[in-house]
Amino acid sequence: MVGGGDGAFIGAVHRIAARLDDCYELVAGALSSQPARAAASAAGIRLAPERSYADYAEMARCEAARPDGIDVVAIVTPNYLHAPVATAFLEQGIHVICDKPLAITLAEGEALAALALSKRRVFALTHVYAGYPMVRHARAMVAAGDIGEVRLVHVEYAQDWLAEAANQGADYQKNNWHNDPLRAGAAGCLGDIGSHAYHLAAFVSGMQPDQVLDDHVQVMLRYPNGARGMLWSSQMATGCENALRLRVYGSKASLAFDQENPNQLWMTPQGGTAQRLTRGRVRGSAAEAVTRVPSGHPEGYLEAFAQLYRDAAAQIIAVETGQAMQSHALDMPDVGDGVAGLRFMDAVLESDRRGSSWVALRA
Amino acid sequence: MVGGGDGAFIGAVHRIAARLDDCYELVAGALSSQPARAAASAAGIRLAPERSYADYAEMARCEAARPDGIDVVAIVTPNYLHAPVATAFLEQGIHVICDKPLAITLAEGEALAALALSKRRVFALTHVYAGYPMVRHARAMVAAGDIGEVRLVHVEYAQDWLAEAANQGADYQKNNWHNDPLRAGAAGCLGDIGSHAYHLAAFVSGMQPDQVLDDHVQVMLRYPNGARGMLWSSQMATGCENALRLRVYGSKASLAFDQENPNQLWMTPQGGTAQRLTRGRVRGSAAEAVTRVPSGHPEGYLEAFAQLYRDAAAQIIAVETGQAMQSHALDMPDVGDGVAGLRFMDAVLESDRRGSSWVALRA
Amino acid sequence: MVGGGDGAFIGAVHRIAARLDDCYELVAGALSSQPARAAASAAGIRLAPERSYADYAEMARCEAARPDGIDVVAIVTPNYLHAPVATAFLEQGIHVICDKPLAITLAEGEALAALALSKRRVFALTHVYAGYPMVRHARAMVAAGDIGEVRLVHVEYAQDWLAEAANQGADYQKNNWHNDPLRAGAAGCLGDIGSHAYHLAAFVSGMQPDQVLDDHVQVMLRYPNGARGMLWSSQMATGCENALRLRVYGSKASLAFDQENPNQLWMTPQGGTAQRLTRGRVRGSAAEAVTRVPSGHPEGYLEAFAQLYRDAAAQIIAVETGQAMQSHALDMPDVGDGVAGLRFMDAVLESDRRGSSWVALRA
Amino acid sequence: MVGGGDGAFIGAVHRIAARLDDCYELVAGALSSQPARAAASAAGIRLAPERSYADYAEMARCEAARPDGIDVVAIVTPNYLHAPVATAFLEQGIHVICDKPLAITLAEGEALAALALSKRRVFALTHVYAGYPMVRHARAMVAAGDIGEVRLVHVEYAQDWLAEAANQGADYQKNNWHNDPLRAGAAGCLGDIGSHAYHLAAFVSGMQPDQVLDDHVQVMLRYPNGARGMLWSSQMATGCENALRLRVYGSKASLAFDQENPNQLWMTPQGGTAQRLTRGRVRGSAAEAVTRVPSGHPEGYLEAFAQLYRDAAAQIIAVETGQAMQSHALDMPDVGDGVAGLRFMDAVLESDRRGSSWVALRA
Repeated sequence: MVGGGDGAFIGAVHRIAARLDDCYELVAGALSSQPARAAASAAGIRLAPERSYADYAEMARCEAARPDGIDVVAIVTPNYLHAPVATAFLEQGIHVICDKPLAITLAEGEALAALALSKRRVFALTHVYAGYPMVRHARAMVAAGDIGEVRLVHVEYAQDWLAEAANQGADYQKNNWHNDPLRAGAAGCLGDIGSHAYHLAAFVSGMQPDQVLDDHVQVMLRYPNGARGMLWSSQMATGCENALRLRVYGSKASLAFDQENPNQLWMTPQGGTAQRLTRGRVRGSAAEAVTRVPSGHPEGYLEAFAQLYRDAAAQIIAVETGQAMQSHALDMPDVGDGVAGLRFMDAVLESDRRGSSWVALRA
Repeated sequence: MVGGGDGAFIGAVHRIAARLDDCYELVAGALSSQPARAAASAAGIRLAPERSYADYAEMARCEAARPDGIDVVAIVTPNYLHAPVATAFLEQGIHVICDKPLAITLAEGEALAALALSKRRVFALTHVYAGYPMVRHARAMVAAGDIGEVRLVHVEYAQDWLAEAANQGADYQKNNWHNDPLRAGAAGCLGDIGSHAYHLAAFVSGMQPDQVLDDHVQVMLRYPNGARGMLWSSQMATGCENALRLRVYGSKASLAFDQENPNQLWMTPQGGTAQRLTRGRVRGSAAEAVTRVPSGHPEGYLEAFAQLYRDAAAQIIAVETGQAMQSHALDMPDVGDGVAGLRFMDAVLESDRRGSSWVALRA
Repeated sequence: MVGGGDGAFIGAVHRIAARLDDCYELVAGALSSQPARAAASAAGIRLAPERSYADYAEMARCEAARPDGIDVVAIVTPNYLHAPVATAFLEQGIHVICDKPLAITLAEGEALAALALSKRRVFALTHVYAGYPMVRHARAMVAAGDIGEVRLVHVEYAQDWLAEAANQGADYQKNNWHNDPLRAGAAGCLGDIGSHAYHLAAFVSGMQPDQVLDDHVQVMLRYPNGARGMLWSSQMATGCENALRLRVYGSKASLAFDQENPNQLWMTPQGGTAQRLTRGRVRGSAAEAVTRVPSGHPEGYLEAFAQLYRDAAAQIIAVETGQAMQSHALDMPDVGDGVAGLRFMDAVLESDRRGSSWVALRA
Repeated sequence: MVGGGDGAFIGAVHRIAARLDDCYELVAGALSSQPARAAASAAGIRLAPERSYADYAEMARCEAARPDGIDVVAIVTPNYLHAPVATAFLEQGIHVICDKPLAITLAEGEALAALALSKRRVFALTHVYAGYPMVRHARAMVAAGDIGEVRLVHVEYAQDWLAEAANQGADYQKNNWHNDPLRAGAAGCLGDIGSHAYHLAAFVSGMQPDQVLDDHVQVMLRYPNGARGMLWSSQMATGCENALRLRVYGSKASLAFDQENPNQLWMTPQGGTAQRLTRGRVRGSAAEAVTRVPSGHPEGYLEAFAQLYRDAAAQIIAVETGQAMQSHALDMPDVGDGVAGLRFMDAVLESDRRGSSWVALRA
């Protein structure tokens, strides 16, 4: 693991996710770039001292050289380090599980995608919400034509913590790298949570828009098939906790998913009655393959996160052994999804620069 | 009443609304422009034969001439007749309750507004959703500053019946004047239900946008104070019944209202806990004045409609007697709201003509 | 109308209900037993002075004698007067619409049932919740076998206003006849709202229990077919507004209805997915016959009340004209339902007297 | 671990729970009483072969004798083995984490409680629902007097899988030890899920009833302070997944919790507005201490289960080191809760034997 020293929220989440299904053993880390903090953090999670590093590049070299070196690295640093760290490990032939966003520029992201491809390494990107069983079920329903042709895609991701931050004044903002364009990328809220919303919409609908128009992270979407869409993202949406919601309207039925209630998926046929599909009750291999406990026993965010680790393990085992891969692993978000997200962000920022006009999205 | 012959849905609704609070007596009508249907319809609701007309202009003249002539006319014709019928009755000094939209062109609407003003007649426009107690409470909360400065306004109105209609083929479409631009106005879905959404957003937020950009009745809104908004309206939203929903995010709290559950209003303070405010339990004169039955005894669409009739009655009595008006009557949508809605529709259509670019909205 | 003078809540509700569908004209009343209040109340609703009475017995006699006398009387007095007033009008051959409960003793109720039968008069009892379209749909589904054999019936009716009252002290209690056993009947909360719960459960399930056991208006039910049930009623259920809820579990599916959300009915097949059936979207003559406005346009308590008036009108017309009756009118709660409710209350009170033991319910 | 061989659902859940917070290492097991299955199961989870046993008594002896022997055993066998297995390990001075119910007879349970006390060993009983943060918050609110005096406790736990089983015929039933009285205890559904419901009600309300009356696992409760209650449990409740719901009505406010939506707790003050309290937003040490991820990121069943393991670890560390215990660990269900549950089941079964009459519950 690179990043994830004491007190880092997402590092702890990654470690739980890695443990949950017992597919990984954590044996080495560059948990912090400050040597003392790195060592203390490593001790806190019982890493052997000789496999605790303060420099990720050294870790990549040393671990690649060890006979018992790591197979895969988890990258949980601030955003601006995702690309250089991933590059260092890919160069050494080590698989990568990387927190999103993939990189802070599209160029970096495209270079990573090319590198992962040439090195034939697995590159998982933790768009966690793609790990929910009901999201996978939604994706499978759309792909199977169950809702007909997609006509409308509405996705939103709203939180209120920056409104809180604003009340707490400048210091809080300064100390949080999420709000620092140099470390988080230019896109702020868009990169932080808008990228999740974009991925979720694309993951379920199976479509990427070809034109966008943005005004304050209210983004209009036009799809090649004539469908329309909306993406809204805000971290100043008063009263919202982690309100990621997707609606997809097809010619036969519509789907609605709310991340805060992830064990449900609403499906309403045209002119008909809303049905509350639930994890554990839906029949369909996409959801069943990633379901751990019976219906009515809620799964949550950590299980979704763990699913991506499980998918990555399945892909790595398939690559390393040449065996066939379990089908659920194909749903793992990867470096290609990361590039698509960066293209979207670039186009949105371009729309802003042009006074909120329509901008084509590169395919 | 003009319009509302046998089988006309909205005419029957207006008659129920007028009866519900016992403020009106229905004594005359031009229920249809076909004499036989007009007479049969009038007999069906026990109008005296001599006060059943087939020509609204004749009705306006004759009723104005009778000592026991009508005080107020309800106009429930197809949209294109709203303006000429209203003009005929206003010219005779008769108050008007008119179904929405006000007219099919902005010019017509502005002329009506001027006429109503010069004649000092009450002109109620039945934007029915403004009659719900919890909508009035929301408006009062915003006006009182309870949610702070408004930053975001999201409103949507989605139905699926045109998707149904598409499946039923062309005849259904042809025979339904809602889908005929000459009789319904140019705006189609925008005029039919988008105008309700626009009014609701303005009614609660107290704000009109000054710029709009439209793409397939997904409309981005910019407000003079820097707030942003979205209005979405569709009659092909698979699975939606009558999904009119409003969210207003302020600096202190947010509000959310869903027309299909109109006895509730959700209020969430920044960083806090969502509260389900209910009709009959909220303390506040705006809601209390228009509440008929105790909390937990649901009121619905017909009561909201009846409220507008009650408001109009209160305004008419105040105008006729010179007495002070009950405060609830000030919340009645009127000819000015109709003009604002027509301006909005004009700007939206202009945005379309310009390839979905930003268009200024006349104040 | 007997009862329903100025300020009486339920009297006003009955008048709205009678007006809503335009089947009735209110022409006479004994609105209060205090002559001055009776006269003032009558004037307030524009009754002719000669048809305002202070004595219900006089009203029954005089109206029966008039050529234009009333066809039907609505009784909205305190409970203890229901039986004597109904008797007076039935004796004169006048149909009756009576607020619930039917009477304050079972003997009174049985006498009324016998009288109504012998006089061949319609006797509607306003168990209002039987007027909701989705309740009628639930009843029809059970009757058609759609949920299989009924195994469990859970009904509850919870309010919190007596907890409020307790805080407001004795005066409030003293002045409210609902809390006076002599005027409200012995049963208190049981008679006031428990009787509604009992009727709703019987109306939908089509079954009457044959044994009951009560502890503080938590009542266990045993049905002849081996099914079990629970009825709970409280007016001190903190935070509850008007929480009447019914669940019926059959061998094939279950149904759930919540009066505070009356446009919905939840149906879940065994092992399957919950479906939210909605008024206006369900296909079935029971619901369709009593639906006024399209799906998504909420109907509420007043429309349910009006439905019972509409049913009564249909029954009266059929009796008076000999014509066939519209089928929806057969769902009207009547004097027989009132007797069943009184039998239930008697058995519950008997269970209390015996220290909460099982008591057989007379068929 | 004892029990939990390949394919055993609850064994896998316990292992995830143990891993999730990284407080445990699984080093030994008697995963099955069939030697071959035990060995294969142990290999499947990478136990050292010498620490895989087919006999739990041998495991207890051998592990106690090893210098690196286990500190604590997790018991996930069929119910009838809980007591003998726990006894064997307690006798060897090994702490116990035991699936519920504690035992299949009250006598066994009381003996276990005495043994654990005399041995001063930690005895965790996995009433998993006590691990939810919002359940802990509810308990803390009641204890702090936030809802006033408790007047009513309604708890229910409904599933539909036995209705499924009935349709699948006798074989399924025969092969499932949950339905075999000899292995599951006499109580069937009552022991299987009713015991969870009972624990949840007691855990939150802080009260044990002193009288019960049962009819088909509809149980009436009377509490020493005069409060009343209801417990209903069924595994033939058509359409129910895992519907464990608790409502507690106090003199000041009511609480409602639904296990299928465990990140929420509804609190409604008397006469007031329902508030949706959420995990991560409530301020209160009981919930905050057991919350892993921020509000809006759902936690679920596995996290609740893991919490009990975390509580047990905290208790064991405190016992072994003499250090002060973290306060959250005091909320861990233990052998005393197990005894209380068995007393409740005994009284319920006694009520059945006496024809559903009132039975006193031993304190």
